Amino acid sequence: MKYADDSFMLHTDLYQINMVETYWKDGIHNKKAVFEMYFRKLPFGNGYSLFAGLQRIIEFIENFGFSESDIAYLREEGQYTEQYLEYLTNLQFTGSIRSMKEGELVFANEPILQIEAPLAEAQLIETALLNIVNFQTLIATKASRIKQVIGEGVAMEFGTRRAQELDAAIWGTRAAYIGGFSATSNVRAGKLFGIPVAGTHAHAMVQAYQDEYVAFTKYAEAHKDCVFLVDTYDTLRSGVPNAIRVAKEFGNKINFIGIRLDSGDMAYLSKEARKMLDEAGFTEAKISASNDLDEYTIMNLKAQGARIDTWGVGTKLITAYDQPALGAVYKLVAIENEAGEMVDTIKISANPEKVTTPGRKRIYRIINNVNGHAEGDYIALAHEKPQAEERLKMFHPVHTYISKFVTDFTAKELHLDVIVNGSVEYELPTIQEIQRYSNDNLNLLWNEYKRTMNPEEYPVDLSQACWDNKMERIREIQEKVRR
Amino acid sequence: MKYADDSFMLHTDLYQINMVETYWKDGIHNKKAVFEMYFRKLPFGNGYSLFAGLQRIIEFIENFGFSESDIAYLREEGQYTEQYLEYLTNLQFTGSIRSMKEGELVFANEPILQIEAPLAEAQLIETALLNIVNFQTLIATKASRIKQVIGEGVAMEFGTRRAQELDAAIWGTRAAYIGGFSATSNVRAGKLFGIPVAGTHAHAMVQAYQDEYVAFTKYAEAHKDCVFLVDTYDTLRSGVPNAIRVAKEFGNKINFIGIRLDSGDMAYLSKEARKMLDEAGFTEAKISASNDLDEYTIMNLKAQGARIDTWGVGTKLITAYDQPALGAVYKLVAIENEAGEMVDTIKISANPEKVTTPGRKRIYRIINNVNGHAEGDYIALAHEKPQAEERLKMFHPVHTYISKFVTDFTAKELHLDVIVNGSVEYELPTIQEIQRYSNDNLNLLWNEYKRTMNPEEYPVDLSQACWDNKMERIREIQEKVRR
Repeated sequence: MKYADDSFMLHTDLYQINMVETYWKDGIHNKKAVFEMYFRKLPFGNGYSLFAGLQRIIEFIENFGFSESDIAYLREEGQYTEQYLEYLTNLQFTGSIRSMKEGELVFANEPILQIEAPLAEAQLIETALLNIVNFQTLIATKASRIKQVIGEGVAMEFGTRRAQELDAAIWGTRAAYIGGFSATSNVRAGKLFGIPVAGTHAHAMVQAYQDEYVAFTKYAEAHKDCVFLVDTYDTLRSGVPNAIRVAKEFGNKINFIGIRLDSGDMAYLSKEARKMLDEAGFTEAKISASNDLDEYTIMNLKAQGARIDTWGVGTKLITAYDQPALGAVYKLVAIENEAGEMVDTIKISANPEKVTTPGRKRIYRIINNVNGHAEGDYIALAHEKPQAEERLKMFHPVHTYISKFVTDFTAKELHLDVIVNGSVEYELPTIQEIQRYSNDNLNLLWNEYKRTMNPEEYPVDLSQACWDNKMERIREIQEKVRR
Repeated sequence: MKYADDSFMLHTDLYQINMVETYWKDGIHNKKAVFEMYFRKLPFGNGYSLFAGLQRIIEFIENFGFSESDIAYLREEGQYTEQYLEYLTNLQFTGSIRSMKEGELVFANEPILQIEAPLAEAQLIETALLNIVNFQTLIATKASRIKQVIGEGVAMEFGTRRAQELDAAIWGTRAAYIGGFSATSNVRAGKLFGIPVAGTHAHAMVQAYQDEYVAFTKYAEAHKDCVFLVDTYDTLRSGVPNAIRVAKEFGNKINFIGIRLDSGDMAYLSKEARKMLDEAGFTEAKISASNDLDEYTIMNLKAQGARIDTWGVGTKLITAYDQPALGAVYKLVAIENEAGEMVDTIKISANPEKVTTPGRKRIYRIINNVNGHAEGDYIALAHEKPQAEERLKMFHPVHTYISKFVTDFTAKELHLDVIVNGSVEYELPTIQEIQRYSNDNLNLLWNEYKRTMNPEEYPVDLSQACWDNKMERIREIQEKVRR
């Protein structure tokens, strides 16, 4: 490589650097701008999503700043002036970021993050922030969805070899833990994030010894905790009998945790293996299974009475196989005008769902004080105070005739100040605390919203002022275009 | 973070470290082992795939070795003895890797890489190698598939914000370039790999100026090359007219490359915009389009006569949306026995396609000397010499009654020595050379294998000796299991 990979500042789309050049030449690069990040549709047909990505965002902002090699590259390959390159060289992040906590429930069209910064700085971080949030939120949501189906069983993340490159494996595993998984096979993720790691042996070990019984024996001689993979040659005729034989021979010298199935019909094999283990007296031995599992297969296997205690989920989780991208966007909602006042901005589109909601907003979860459940989320303009209302009118943001009044509620604000004027003001919880937080959040939700298939739609409503403001901006633009 | 992220050695599944412990305690960790990596099924229903990943693999092997923080983590969190940790601390990679070149055509069940190394070392690199090859090969293949449909048009990679975390964005972009894309929006990928970067401005710039005409003017004042994004408010009533107005006003002061469409009906809008540009005298101005494009939408738009010159492809490419994982595996095919001889190994499975083909193999592309096209690939045991045959019998590896004889051919061996006894013996071509190589390879293939939908199946055949050896090993195992 000609240039060192020593910075993430160029992990952005070229147009950001070109737009910033426009602003800088025009002298508006330091105008205060407000951007909000949100997605338009929940993934997987799920009734909710779980936000993840904040740790990586904070690290990214802490390392904001072009490196010498970044500037050298832009000088050689771009068509930028020395003055502009000098401006970039000296650029620091001085803006503020409000964000949901990781593990927060998030729904369509809700601002997950709000960036208030000089226009140039806000643009330069857009691409990386989307890259991070889109993936990590997707995987946390997929993991939570799978964990809902697994229920009391143990969920393990086994996807590294099928992940979309190295970062996806480790940050995906972290997101899976936030979504309720118990452990991962990826040791680096264990090292970096404190996630429990799990795993015993592969088919290769049995092949290396060319004898399954010998291989299990050698493993037992080297390890106290034993899970034997039983499908290298023949699960029921060779694997399970050999596992039982070794477990009996070693007795208390090992902790025979159980067996792992990795191919064949999991419902049939797990029931037969359960019988064999029970008959041999190993009623406490666990059966773990892995083989292209996802929430649908797991649900089906459970419905067929499969006797599986631990579910190893790989490909389908770590790539979010049935919907491998979340479409979060990052939109300008307000900007400082020439007079130094903030004005709201909008983007219109031929695709109606792409019309933005202008203005700096606050988002509240409306929690019913009587039953402790969430009634819906309420998006208001920054100056509104729904917390202080006795009676809140909530209406559907598209079908506005659907409305309800809520009383006796708590309006919990969902954003907190993470970065204030360029400095990090938020201490990340431990990964265990984040997992607990996401679990507590799920308890707020009625079961109707947590159904795997065809869940009810959770209400995310705009305040009257927010709605009126949007309509007003649309009218302004339409008049201008038709003029 | 408690531990520094200063090494990729723990970017592996825990079971590898546990298996290596077994081997080490048993004293067989330095037995020579041969592993082969291959996938079982081509992705996307495509007729071929393109290998990518070798640069990252070489970098990984060059940095092989546990860091102090790796060992500190294993000491604190694992249940390993100090002697074993000391062994790991001193471990270096001393093995050899044979590999296809990047940009090579690869088909199902062909060894892409062959690793010959002490058993322990070969196991410790498995997970990372699979993680790398599975993703990069998938994206190179998807890109090639999309580029086949685009034909003479220009293909741009625009997917960073939807990629599965940061590594996927940059290595995916590199793979897309190998697959025939011309440029990327990701500046870091441009910096690291020498890929051309492209991009102009986003909706946010138009919103920031709150006036499309003013925004285009400001951009034109700051940049010679101009592509205007025309759909912030209304493509045909506002965007295109404003682009034309600014292009006329600036005349030769700018290079008006054209416009970009990012929403709405691309067939209709591109045709209307083409008319407007032509009528204004900008017959050379290009129309670029982006909005959830993939090979199917592009094919359809072209069939409807869309006037699009440049195709910006994002989400569907960078995540390989319709099949986001390739299932390459890494299997032990031979190992040194107690007498120091190499013996072939096999894995049987209840899923027949999971049965491995034992023995160290060589793979040849059989090129017809008369027409210059590839007749098929031929997998032989390492000692065979198909290059020297005058007449080669090729038969289908499952339906063995299907066979043919080939004469007047060149048998091109597809592997080369990349790493020999731990040292890198291969100099990577430039990314441009790799792209050319993949393009030359595609020219070897009959069009029947390059069809987007329902391509013919390219023959990948086993030699008679390779087949007989596999059957023999299966018989041995079956006798043993039934005993």
